[in-house]
Amino acid sequence: MILIGERINAGFKDIKNAIINKDGDVIKEWARKQTDANADYLDVNLGTASNKPEDLCWMIEMVQEEVDTTISIDNNKPVMLKEAMPVCKKPPLVNSTTAVEEKMNELFPIVAEHNASIIGLVMDEAGSPATTDKRIENAGKIIEKAMEFGLSPEQIFLDPIIMPLKFMQPQAKEILSAANQFQLFSDPPCHIVCGLTNISNGAKHKILINRVFLSMLIANGCDAAILNVLDEELINTILTAELIMDKEIYADSYIEAFQKK
Amino acid sequence: MILIGERINAGFKDIKNAIINKDGDVIKEWARKQTDANADYLDVNLGTASNKPEDLCWMIEMVQEEVDTTISIDNNKPVMLKEAMPVCKKPPLVNSTTAVEEKMNELFPIVAEHNASIIGLVMDEAGSPATTDKRIENAGKIIEKAMEFGLSPEQIFLDPIIMPLKFMQPQAKEILSAANQFQLFSDPPCHIVCGLTNISNGAKHKILINRVFLSMLIANGCDAAILNVLDEELINTILTAELIMDKEIYADSYIEAFQKK
Repeated sequence: MILIGERINAGFKDIKNAIINKDGDVIKEWARKQTDANADYLDVNLGTASNKPEDLCWMIEMVQEEVDTTISIDNNKPVMLKEAMPVCKKPPLVNSTTAVEEKMNELFPIVAEHNASIIGLVMDEAGSPATTDKRIENAGKIIEKAMEFGLSPEQIFLDPIIMPLKFMQPQAKEILSAANQFQLFSDPPCHIVCGLTNISNGAKHKILINRVFLSMLIANGCDAAILNVLDEELINTILTAELIMDKEIYADSYIEAFQKK
Repeated sequence: MILIGERINAGFKDIKNAIINKDGDVIKEWARKQTDANADYLDVNLGTASNKPEDLCWMIEMVQEEVDTTISIDNNKPVMLKEAMPVCKKPPLVNSTTAVEEKMNELFPIVAEHNASIIGLVMDEAGSPATTDKRIENAGKIIEKAMEFGLSPEQIFLDPIIMPLKFMQPQAKEILSAANQFQLFSDPPCHIVCGLTNISNGAKHKILINRVFLSMLIANGCDAAILNVLDEELINTILTAELIMDKEIYADSYIEAFQKK
């Protein structure tokens, strides 16, 4: 499972303040903590704290002063990406494009130039998809366009777009079904990523809903997630689900081994 | 989800002693506890405590003096079933047949006569199945034979046969895939049942493995399980999985509502 640490995001107050006050230590601390918890990527998001490319570059630099974990740039504006991508020491993951033609034409050349990867949300001009079929149609558009720009399936992270169970209950089944079918587009397949916590938005039993849905997503091919990598129980759920799906070899101490990595 | 309480089984020492000493209170206590925990069926198993039909009948009578929950007779010997089934106040669930022709020819007439249901383990003369295809082949044999005897799909509980993750890791995926395809045999489909805890036999992180695998099973159509109905966390996993699969209508208090049933 590809773990994308969600925490360096100005939606969190401490990160927002760190950006405003240029307090690099806060960024570094979260970079370290998430890396120690085996994050494969660190999502970096300016939120509403700033819209200046130099602030995004500063965040990335702070992370890279502390760790060598790959960056996920959580921004879809070419003007920002053009500045931020050269700062990344390793090819980053761009978060994200949609299936909108204009957006893909803007972003894919930048991604290809830097040999980066990109998350593709399977939504289009009409907004979020309501059915499995619409998700697959949009995924197809993203893959086709990516191939045109010379990107390989491994550089694409398809996001089936998770909707809150509380408000759109029938969507959960559609999402699982879409993820399952995303695996069939190519061999090797694209990655399948999810912004997990959307499923439990507004719900009372968030932790349980997140864990059960993530188990089901992994059974349907999801191999990447943006999440709180410090949530041990959630990570243990992932490790167990991957074992069940035969992605890792069984050992009694599979959890302990991961923690010691 | 159809919950089958596993506890009245002479594999547990207190039940074995109760049978030997004809101590009905122990049986009644477990009948009450599991019924209060919303068990739909109570499995009744003599184990090695006895092989006398009258002892099996006694167990069933003890349960029925305390509760009116439907019995699951965990015995596949016609000589036992012929005595025990008339004692059941409601049509019971017989646990279990295999796809072996001779066994089915013995059991299905008895099941049909009492308008009962039966668990069909998808194994045959060759033993346990190792592949999805073999599971489906055996399920097909069970369904075909059941139809010959006039049983409806709702009277059949197909069991894909869960193998221990620790010793047969690649089987887990096959089981999920088989369960998924069992749904396609008929409309309405047969029930799909599992003896859940087999998955974690010998493993260190049993609780976690049980929960994650059960989530995946439910996402693949499993609608019945033989389990410890008093394990609240496991039951909460089931309730959450069924909500995600849109089998129950979302309410913030879905867990609390179940507990108050």
